[in-house]
Amino acid sequence: MNIEVCYTPQAYPLFHNPNAVVVVIDVLRATSAITTAFYNGVLKIIPIATVEEALEYKSNGYMVAAERNGEVLEGFDLGNSPFGYMNSKVKGKTIAITTTNGTQAIDAAKSAHKIIIGSFLNLDAIVDYLIEEKKDVLFLCAGWKNKFNLEDTLFAGAVAEKLSLKSGFETQCDSTLAAIDLYKLAKHDLVGYLANSSHRNRLAKLDLERDIKYCLTPNQCPVVPVMEGKFLVKG
Amino acid sequence: MNIEVCYTPQAYPLFHNPNAVVVVIDVLRATSAITTAFYNGVLKIIPIATVEEALEYKSNGYMVAAERNGEVLEGFDLGNSPFGYMNSKVKGKTIAITTTNGTQAIDAAKSAHKIIIGSFLNLDAIVDYLIEEKKDVLFLCAGWKNKFNLEDTLFAGAVAEKLSLKSGFETQCDSTLAAIDLYKLAKHDLVGYLANSSHRNRLAKLDLERDIKYCLTPNQCPVVPVMEGKFLVKG
Repeated sequence: MNIEVCYTPQAYPLFHNPNAVVVVIDVLRATSAITTAFYNGVLKIIPIATVEEALEYKSNGYMVAAERNGEVLEGFDLGNSPFGYMNSKVKGKTIAITTTNGTQAIDAAKSAHKIIIGSFLNLDAIVDYLIEEKKDVLFLCAGWKNKFNLEDTLFAGAVAEKLSLKSGFETQCDSTLAAIDLYKLAKHDLVGYLANSSHRNRLAKLDLERDIKYCLTPNQCPVVPVMEGKFLVKG
Repeated sequence: MNIEVCYTPQAYPLFHNPNAVVVVIDVLRATSAITTAFYNGVLKIIPIATVEEALEYKSNGYMVAAERNGEVLEGFDLGNSPFGYMNSKVKGKTIAITTTNGTQAIDAAKSAHKIIIGSFLNLDAIVDYLIEEKKDVLFLCAGWKNKFNLEDTLFAGAVAEKLSLKSGFETQCDSTLAAIDLYKLAKHDLVGYLANSSHRNRLAKLDLERDIKYCLTPNQCPVVPVMEGKFLVKG
């Protein structure tokens, strides 16, 4: 089974592999929020690309999360902060969600064989799931507005490193080799390693240090969100 | 002055900065060959994107280099091997050149303020040139068919590391931080570090080990090729 890492949604068509499980990654914070939501009892999530769709879902009575540039959009219930989903109000609910990068990445991969949602919060659960699936693996980093980012790459490297130790998995992809090496540099102090990264600083300015530390702490939410039709459900 | 690294020509429009000097990088082997050519007395190089244009230049009497997928195209004088340009026949000549990735990268950046050609062969000359220019710097890696590659990233990291030690240069770009960290890992043994990289293996299959070792040995050709109109000339 082959492992590849695609650093941005823009590049996805070059990596599309009809046999691969695509792991969509937006560590700060969409896929961390989604993982947290399922761990806290959300029933279904509908990832949507545009604010217009979000407004439509809202007018149809859905609970709707909408974030752009790190902030909750006015008039919406929730944004991108995982802490917003640690709440009994979300239990059993179906939530529509649109974010700056994460839901665009899910949209880019919509023709994939299977899409799952990865974050440090469900790191080991993702590894176990992929070992069980026995398929090619394509990590799709959400990045920041189609530019490479470090935190998503580090998560791809974390999973790729663990998979590459299992028989049957291999990689000839330079972006995977780079992701693994960067993760090895960073893994003993993810928060410290990312101190200079662009998006961490963007969020720090928004006073989101608590979110950052939470999103970089592995294995707090051992669930694997899986795309089924237009819904994400607990896999 | 800001430093950014763009990993693929596809992403160039997201990074375009009208004030930046763009350093085009295709270590294996287009920009190494171009650097070697100028060091060996070539007068001008015309980078062209398509084989059709190459045929047209040939029929007009030009010396033409044409490479695709690592091999010289049939009917052309030269390909991508730097050793082809260490030859008295090229001295004083104008050569048209088309390659799989490198000349596409030059084409992608054609709206830039200034384009220069970088490779390990002219590493320190590039650093000195950029310090002298006092402009923003954008590294444009040719990659492999619009996918990230390690060797171009390592060269970007090598120059970025040196520039970041000079006052006035800074970076908030995750791809630059990653390139610098990867270069720090690799710099004491570039050939060894790249042993598993995808393009190195592609070339090794074509029996091009000698080219690889040459292209990864810094500072053999202290010249800076610069784009002027449709020509590359010695800067």
